[in-house]
Amino acid sequence: MRIAVIGVGLIGGSIALAARSRLGASVAGFDSDPQALAQAIERGVVDTRCENVEQAVADAEAVFVATPVGVLPEAVAAVLKAAPDSAVVTDVGSTKRTIVAQQDDPRFVGGHPLAGAETAGVRYARADLFAGATWYLTPTAITSGVLYERLYRLLHSLGARPAAIEPDVHDAILASVSHLPHVLANVLVSQAASQLAAGGQRLPAAGPSFRDATRVAGAPSTIWTDIYVSNSDALITAIDDTVIGLQRTRAALAKADRAWIQDWNEQAAADRRRLLEADLAGAELFELRASVPNRPGVIAQLALELGRAGVNIADMALYPAPDMSEGVVALWISGSDAAARAQQLVDGLGFPVARA
Amino acid sequence: MRIAVIGVGLIGGSIALAARSRLGASVAGFDSDPQALAQAIERGVVDTRCENVEQAVADAEAVFVATPVGVLPEAVAAVLKAAPDSAVVTDVGSTKRTIVAQQDDPRFVGGHPLAGAETAGVRYARADLFAGATWYLTPTAITSGVLYERLYRLLHSLGARPAAIEPDVHDAILASVSHLPHVLANVLVSQAASQLAAGGQRLPAAGPSFRDATRVAGAPSTIWTDIYVSNSDALITAIDDTVIGLQRTRAALAKADRAWIQDWNEQAAADRRRLLEADLAGAELFELRASVPNRPGVIAQLALELGRAGVNIADMALYPAPDMSEGVVALWISGSDAAARAQQLVDGLGFPVARA
Repeated sequence: MRIAVIGVGLIGGSIALAARSRLGASVAGFDSDPQALAQAIERGVVDTRCENVEQAVADAEAVFVATPVGVLPEAVAAVLKAAPDSAVVTDVGSTKRTIVAQQDDPRFVGGHPLAGAETAGVRYARADLFAGATWYLTPTAITSGVLYERLYRLLHSLGARPAAIEPDVHDAILASVSHLPHVLANVLVSQAASQLAAGGQRLPAAGPSFRDATRVAGAPSTIWTDIYVSNSDALITAIDDTVIGLQRTRAALAKADRAWIQDWNEQAAADRRRLLEADLAGAELFELRASVPNRPGVIAQLALELGRAGVNIADMALYPAPDMSEGVVALWISGSDAAARAQQLVDGLGFPVARA
Repeated sequence: MRIAVIGVGLIGGSIALAARSRLGASVAGFDSDPQALAQAIERGVVDTRCENVEQAVADAEAVFVATPVGVLPEAVAAVLKAAPDSAVVTDVGSTKRTIVAQQDDPRFVGGHPLAGAETAGVRYARADLFAGATWYLTPTAITSGVLYERLYRLLHSLGARPAAIEPDVHDAILASVSHLPHVLANVLVSQAASQLAAGGQRLPAAGPSFRDATRVAGAPSTIWTDIYVSNSDALITAIDDTVIGLQRTRAALAKADRAWIQDWNEQAAADRRRLLEADLAGAELFELRASVPNRPGVIAQLALELGRAGVNIADMALYPAPDMSEGVVALWISGSDAAARAQQLVDGLGFPVARA
């Protein structure tokens, strides 16, 4: 398989390494920063050093645009202009509404792997970065089903768990589970630091709860300023919710309302357990086979319908009919209940479906 | 040395174990919960099982009152009434103003070890719980110097780092670095859980930043309801500061003020570095983050490699990946040269490592 990676930092470099070691793919790389590109060659991250985007994507079957969020629009546009008709093009940006709204090309599928680190740069790239990680994909009604399936299977081969999601839902969830925790970490450290200064330089011994809560404080500005700005409305909503939550707690504290505080605390314990359990899949796999017409958007419709219901597609495959008028989609679903639910949902979309 | 422990839970039990193993002390124990006391005896945590407070403290040189914060006042009063004139009496409560204000006895010194866990109960007690931990002490103008010194040296012998502090400063600092992070963790999980419910049960794949930020959500209510209520005014001040901080960030986001966001983010990075450095008296602290596979012996290998080279690990934390296939080890190393050497050594073992 021939893959192109535009932007060979931590994520792009890790995609390249994973594609080469897990798939035996040949990887062409380009980066607007010559030093980063030189480092990627030196470390053997990519096979071919390209002089520009056009050269990198010339004969690619899949293109990953892994630049910072701020320059994604022009990078994706340049790639779509130069890439073959048969190539699938995706990005890895942490917010999805803007970039997806700007595209009207059936070859483009927005993407976002939930992997990464506090570190940046190709020297931290590694082939197993995506092992077990959720990799969000945002297919739309115009997305080519064939190309979506290729990307899905490719990500699956890289060890990731691809999951379809609408761009606005993605951005709202990420605001809550990633961007907001980063904001709170920043606010917490600033607060502790100014208390320290006001207290005549007394040194507090920060306990483990503080250390964990602020681990992501001051994450790299080159990446995070873009993320904050590009998702500012969803993040503002999340911040407003947090302020409401804090004010409720404040009111209970002011009244020394022990019963409320205890309920609230125990609800939090239950919520966290539930959230983290949900994060771990790992059950028996069931295969469904659905017959679908071969028109743009069908695969996206299926994937999003199941995604909305919280049904995780562990794997998928597309088998087109010889005349390409229709096809069979095989879906592997984790867990018997989820498989039954998936069957119901696919049936509800009007596609004949059966357990294989 | 003869020590009495009133309340043999996680903290009281660990004090008993440490005093016996490190000092060869004889430890008398009492707990108002007969089951907890029986368990402490069964596990060999205390030497002498006492029927009441009076019996436990009768010939003690030092008494630790390790009951929940809510019943501390009466427990300390009972101990002071029964203890010899020559005994030092201390508590381990997480807030200090109330209990200290209630005492006018030269034998009493308020105390608070910054140690503990999400777990509670004597079965998690261990002799090394306080190794390297800050142990705040709140001597007042009426505290006996001799008894204070005895307590200080005793705590030092248990492996802790005792530090004197005023009760109000203690409570304000703890509100910021412990109680507030607990409140924020609760608010974060509630918010994510209700978003989940509103979004038709879609399961978000919670990233590592969310997991770390919410690690302490829903800490044991039996302990934490008391802590929240007893420090409610300092905690309310901390919450109000957080709301102000959030609103400032919100305003910058609403204006897409990139310069402000970048300054704020970089200030947070600098503040966190400074706060964690301050945590270790003396040399500057550097944080390294290494990615390691999750297999037995890896942590030992890391620790031994650094140990052999004479590099001291001031602190460490392990953050496993969701699927447990790998993890990130954070290592705090004291001193720039030692940190550089450590980075080299970890790199030499084949683990990707970076300065955080």
